[in-house]
Amino acid sequence: MPANREIENLIELMAKLPGLGPRSARRAVLHLIRKRALLLTPLADAMQEVAATARECLNCGNVATSDICDICQDNRRANGELCVVEDVADLWAMERARVFKGRYHVLGGTLSALDAVGPEELRIPKLLDRIPGEHITEVILALNATVEGQTTAHYIADQLEGQVKLTSLAQGVPIGGELDYLDDGTISAALRARKEV
Amino acid sequence: MPANREIENLIELMAKLPGLGPRSARRAVLHLIRKRALLLTPLADAMQEVAATARECLNCGNVATSDICDICQDNRRANGELCVVEDVADLWAMERARVFKGRYHVLGGTLSALDAVGPEELRIPKLLDRIPGEHITEVILALNATVEGQTTAHYIADQLEGQVKLTSLAQGVPIGGELDYLDDGTISAALRARKEV
Ligand SMILES: [Zn+2]
Ligand SMILES: [Zn+2]
Repeated sequence: MPANREIENLIELMAKLPGLGPRSARRAVLHLIRKRALLLTPLADAMQEVAATARECLNCGNVATSDICDICQDNRRANGELCVVEDVADLWAMERARVFKGRYHVLGGTLSALDAVGPEELRIPKLLDRIPGEHITEVILALNATVEGQTTAHYIADQLEGQVKLTSLAQGVPIGGELDYLDDGTISAALRARKEV
Repeated sequence: MPANREIENLIELMAKLPGLGPRSARRAVLHLIRKRALLLTPLADAMQEVAATARECLNCGNVATSDICDICQDNRRANGELCVVEDVADLWAMERARVFKGRYHVLGGTLSALDAVGPEELRIPKLLDRIPGEHITEVILALNATVEGQTTAHYIADQLEGQVKLTSLAQGVPIGGELDYLDDGTISAALRARKEV
């Protein structure tokens, strides 16, 4: 209704982004049209490039632009430490804190009987394979401090019992807190003060 | 830092959209990567299409995909009524209310001595040309109920005094309210109850 088919189509698609409703999508599209050369064209190009290259790392589940992500390819990060997170946003939050030097394993969610999410859906078999395969000595369970996150952490701890040192983020993660909402300093402190499960 | 150059670049560009900060831009990009086929690729295509076609209507300043916008091309809307708005978002808000059947003139802002915005910057000369050119008999000053909006409305009213019937949106527009924030019913009521300036 606002304008032409092309512009309406763009507004509709923008409104599907998390955090943007119809009104903010309209504002964003007007902003894009005003900044065509500076923002609209570069953004379209960047999306096309990501669409053409982005995929899931076959090893850890991180977002990658090749089959194996940069972190998994980096041998300096093969220090025997593996940090298990729920999703890629959490991995990025850990990386922003610049304190963890090992590798990650992205579960892609939490166990949920209600939603029929079992270990197979969560890349847990791959996690168990990686322990001997990458000579992992410590698994840091950096799951969110929610009921689902902690249930999943306990399940993984049960599976790995006796095979590796198991730790979890400690000091600084508030009850019910989600990693991606925490500041970098809090994450650093929680990692440094990690405790054995 | 979060991932690869391509993805970081996309996050940076997304963070420049109004209403999205770095954190919501990261969330949006992860969402886009997860919904590559359903959302990312269509969005990139839609942006490319709008970038290739969107321009300002040479007549009214509306966003268009040709030199003259659909509304200015539609002869059924040449009913002698011209609605003056500050920006395209306001025009879209009026259109959503589906009550105005005439044409628009988009100023592109408000007069501001402080920001050196004079009549020339606001497409006001073009507005004055359109009055005889399109046989306009009524100009509806649908500017925002802000100090700047009302100052601009008074300036235009002075210029058009005696040439046309001058009206403004009345009942329903709250003091300090901006059109684009109002619901459609309020806009409809305000237009129906418009009063002569
Ligand atoms: Zn990886
Ligand atoms: Zn037009």
